[in-house]
Amino acid sequence: MLLRMSTLFVRTLREDPADAEVPSHRLLVRAGYIRRAAPGIYSWLPLGLRVLAKVEQVVREEMDAIGAQEVHFPALLPREPYERTGRWTEYGPNLFRLHDRRENDYLLAPTHEEMFTLLVKDLYSSYKDLPLALYQIQTKYRDEARPRAGLLRGREFIMKDAYSFDVDDAGLDAAYLRQREAYQRVFTRLGLDYVIVAAMSGAMGGSRSEEFLMPTPVGEDTFVRSAGGYAANVEAVTTPVPDAIGYDDAPAAHVEDTPDTPTIDTLVALANERFARPDRDWTAADTLKNVVVAVVEPDGARDLLVVGVPGDREVDMTRLEAALAPAAVEAAGEADFAAHPELVKGYIGPAALGRANTGRQDAIRYLLDPRVVPGTRWITGANEPGRHVFDLVAGRDFVADGTIEAAEVRAGDPAPDGSGPLELARGIEIGHIFALGRKYAEALGLTVLDENGKAVTVTMGSYGIGVSRAVAALAETNHDDAGLAWPAGVAPAHVYLVAAGKDEAVRAECEELAADLHGQGVEVIYDDRNERPGVKFADAELIGVPIIVTVGRSLAEGVVEVRLRRPADAGLPAGERPPVERVPVQDAAVRIGGLVASLVEG
Amino acid sequence: MLLRMSTLFVRTLREDPADAEVPSHRLLVRAGYIRRAAPGIYSWLPLGLRVLAKVEQVVREEMDAIGAQEVHFPALLPREPYERTGRWTEYGPNLFRLHDRRENDYLLAPTHEEMFTLLVKDLYSSYKDLPLALYQIQTKYRDEARPRAGLLRGREFIMKDAYSFDVDDAGLDAAYLRQREAYQRVFTRLGLDYVIVAAMSGAMGGSRSEEFLMPTPVGEDTFVRSAGGYAANVEAVTTPVPDAIGYDDAPAAHVEDTPDTPTIDTLVALANERFARPDRDWTAADTLKNVVVAVVEPDGARDLLVVGVPGDREVDMTRLEAALAPAAVEAAGEADFAAHPELVKGYIGPAALGRANTGRQDAIRYLLDPRVVPGTRWITGANEPGRHVFDLVAGRDFVADGTIEAAEVRAGDPAPDGSGPLELARGIEIGHIFALGRKYAEALGLTVLDENGKAVTVTMGSYGIGVSRAVAALAETNHDDAGLAWPAGVAPAHVYLVAAGKDEAVRAECEELAADLHGQGVEVIYDDRNERPGVKFADAELIGVPIIVTVGRSLAEGVVEVRLRRPADAGLPAGERPPVERVPVQDAAVRIGGLVASLVEG
Repeated sequence: MLLRMSTLFVRTLREDPADAEVPSHRLLVRAGYIRRAAPGIYSWLPLGLRVLAKVEQVVREEMDAIGAQEVHFPALLPREPYERTGRWTEYGPNLFRLHDRRENDYLLAPTHEEMFTLLVKDLYSSYKDLPLALYQIQTKYRDEARPRAGLLRGREFIMKDAYSFDVDDAGLDAAYLRQREAYQRVFTRLGLDYVIVAAMSGAMGGSRSEEFLMPTPVGEDTFVRSAGGYAANVEAVTTPVPDAIGYDDAPAAHVEDTPDTPTIDTLVALANERFARPDRDWTAADTLKNVVVAVVEPDGARDLLVVGVPGDREVDMTRLEAALAPAAVEAAGEADFAAHPELVKGYIGPAALGRANTGRQDAIRYLLDPRVVPGTRWITGANEPGRHVFDLVAGRDFVADGTIEAAEVRAGDPAPDGSGPLELARGIEIGHIFALGRKYAEALGLTVLDENGKAVTVTMGSYGIGVSRAVAALAETNHDDAGLAWPAGVAPAHVYLVAAGKDEAVRAECEELAADLHGQGVEVIYDDRNERPGVKFADAELIGVPIIVTVGRSLAEGVVEVRLRRPADAGLPAGERPPVERVPVQDAAVRIGGLVASLVEG
Repeated sequence: MLLRMSTLFVRTLREDPADAEVPSHRLLVRAGYIRRAAPGIYSWLPLGLRVLAKVEQVVREEMDAIGAQEVHFPALLPREPYERTGRWTEYGPNLFRLHDRRENDYLLAPTHEEMFTLLVKDLYSSYKDLPLALYQIQTKYRDEARPRAGLLRGREFIMKDAYSFDVDDAGLDAAYLRQREAYQRVFTRLGLDYVIVAAMSGAMGGSRSEEFLMPTPVGEDTFVRSAGGYAANVEAVTTPVPDAIGYDDAPAAHVEDTPDTPTIDTLVALANERFARPDRDWTAADTLKNVVVAVVEPDGARDLLVVGVPGDREVDMTRLEAALAPAAVEAAGEADFAAHPELVKGYIGPAALGRANTGRQDAIRYLLDPRVVPGTRWITGANEPGRHVFDLVAGRDFVADGTIEAAEVRAGDPAPDGSGPLELARGIEIGHIFALGRKYAEALGLTVLDENGKAVTVTMGSYGIGVSRAVAALAETNHDDAGLAWPAGVAPAHVYLVAAGKDEAVRAECEELAADLHGQGVEVIYDDRNERPGVKFADAELIGVPIIVTVGRSLAEGVVEVRLRRPADAGLPAGERPPVERVPVQDAAVRIGGLVASLVEG
């Protein structure tokens, strides 16, 4: 392949796009790989499309290698199958819905469990037909509330979605493991660092799921890990439940005047000043904070919920929403408080909350952090302005309608499996695998006959890789201040050839070298423009092809200059600039060809 | 590539699908290539996806060969650019429209002129940047009123759409020609017979357009051609206008009682009986038939129109609609006649129609066939029940608001370029090229600076190939009673290997041969199922891979049987069955590899 910069459809930009928050977005736009068409919707220019195709090919090869078969479904789908699994409603506003000229409802598919289930039902009928794994690389749609960061969170994006079909749990386990291992190979081949974390199944349903996260500070997902090997998306972290505490010796609860203490900090300060305890200071962990939110079901039904957490922790809205999925969570507004005079802002306490405490069927639902076990004692609101209750004992003085994982997870919290304290990090979700079980097969009637002629419901898995997102993840991982710096396996070309000078000898040598390299199967971008060398070098760095070859002044000495773009390819630490190699012109094609081969083989 | 039928995701059907009208639809479904997901919306199974990918690759190579650069646009697009060109409205109900969670309007793109124009505007600014040709292979949407014939007229389909950008008309002409020649190479390589016909530009706009039609009786498009080389889609045929005739000697028009003559036939019969002319019989061609229709503009506005044609011709609704595009045409209903008492059904005449004849600004619009030149004399309605007017002379007694190409074209009609009588045929539109000119560039402000620093509007072309439709066209061309019969270049595999027998020797030889062929790069479907040989042979024929290899009884004699699926590949006329070649088992891999090479090279 030989692309000439004089005709290649690309324009590099010196300025960052105004809406770009993260390096991958900034650089993919500046280097002319992608272009925004609408919020969260991008066009692929020739360079970007080449990277995308290479990433797709790696994914395709690893799917084929585990016997998954490629198919291709429509993006525009009828409502009915999604109605049968409940997802037409559950997806809420995240689903692009439309109707056709006959007023039939359609959707733009965010994922294809329903259609794959129906297709297998359509074609297969016997246990002998299984196991089966199918996949597609296809355009998906999701009407994100806040599309952001370019390809990282788009509304139209490219996914590899695979689905497995088995007769029994052991089959599903094996299929899940095959996919998991294929994902490890895909990300290793792409050079993407990843952590596999336990995850919530969310709207997908199912028994088990794991995410592949690429650690990066710009990631949207927070995950935790312990030195002992525990790793989970923060939504999936469960809190170790302490043992209950005896409370026979506990004093009776007593209400105290606590004027001007609308916050935990003011309350703790006042408690230490007026109600000092002999053994130690009161801390925020002694208070029980009751947070009011509104829960909006996918069908629009809206109800208040109060979440009680130790006062030293915030409610993590992401964890709360994951715990309540598919419902969404909104802040409670003035109208909510007006409708519920029992909620005394800043002084809300258990006595006003939950069916058991209030004895009212229409009481506001009250859910507690798992740490609030029987016997724990709390300072909390007394449901009167300026008053709190002390020594309120869980299990004695109040109960809740249940527990909920909604409190923030903090560095140092114990891992639920006892493997040590947690550390927190951020990552980009590049893959997600689900052991779905029988949810979709049951809803859509996918059964096969077993050895005894009895119909058994098929068990399924679904496995996604964000292919366009992987391009952004690669850009996040592979760039420096000067621009992108692709690994050879996914770079839009292997060599960026700079004609540094306008004299005929330079031009002639470039043409010959470009043709030689092309003949060897090396992919070349030849910068044949009438531009100053400085402009060409800047574009070479920005576009980020792994080998930069300059034919210029040194040609008089019979030499061309070869430089690796990536420090890592030269065995150097990040930030160091690989040295220039002066190669005799007659050896250049062979030397560069050899370099390309060694880089591509990695 | 080696696919095993025991695990390949395919089920062949013995029965035709109920909704399949044409062979390609019937066979692609029966042979397990595609599966319906919704009306006009199909999923691609592994075999179908392989054929699609091969067709795409041919198209891609020929686009690349003329220097067109591949990009990829979203399918989900904002309304605004389509609003600026008027197509948001013009597309009427054919456009899938939707809105996002913020109530912004979006569409699923049927074609991408607007977005390409804006992208080039975004990146380019100088005449030096041109010429430029871009293309994509992408999923398109069109909410067809009557999706039919499987992939031939779908609502979600795959197109290659290319766009050219030039500074001047000569550049556009050259770009148009390059694409035209590339299309010829694409269809020749695919083995698709084609006719290039003049076409209407329709909703696309522009000055010149041609369609590539594959002649077949199941085609939806009617086209004409003359022995002298004229060829046009029937919508684009223009009627040679006869010279005007003197009418100084014409008698005055006279109204006659013509009871019970609501049709042309009854009118002609009565005229010959009661008003016989001395020189010859009256014929239908002497009558002027006035047909009432309703014209519905894309914005919903609806008005009546009367089209006057010689009584021996029908109004061709396809031609009428093409002439009135982007408006649609409906039959006039009872309510229309009730609202217009001047329309006397069966006896409608020019005196009640058009502004000039009636002297009324709100008269029903009246358009005439181009054959109705001044001096022609007609029998036509007198606007009273049971009465017609005779010797009504065009230009003397009536005029119209204009002419329209709406009368049917008939075999034997003269070609407009004088190249002889026309013959009619049907075809499938597999490609369409448009010299758009400056319509889109003007609407969206795409200019570049010329050599003198002056802004000039860019001139554009757009060029489409129906890629998924081409798969159906290939199936239409390449099948027989037993099933599909793909040419080697697009077949899902080269060899269908049948293990005809369950003994170990047969199995072992099949495994070895399959592995040998796979090692040579031959694409093999190996039928390793536990099925009777008859079932396997039937599936081999239905699936239609070009070489069928049988390892069975003759293995005892050291022989495998090789047969070509397509008579054409064996140099035989259609319908003849290629002979079985008995190949010594030790030579089989080499012999088959050689056959594959010769077939693929074509």
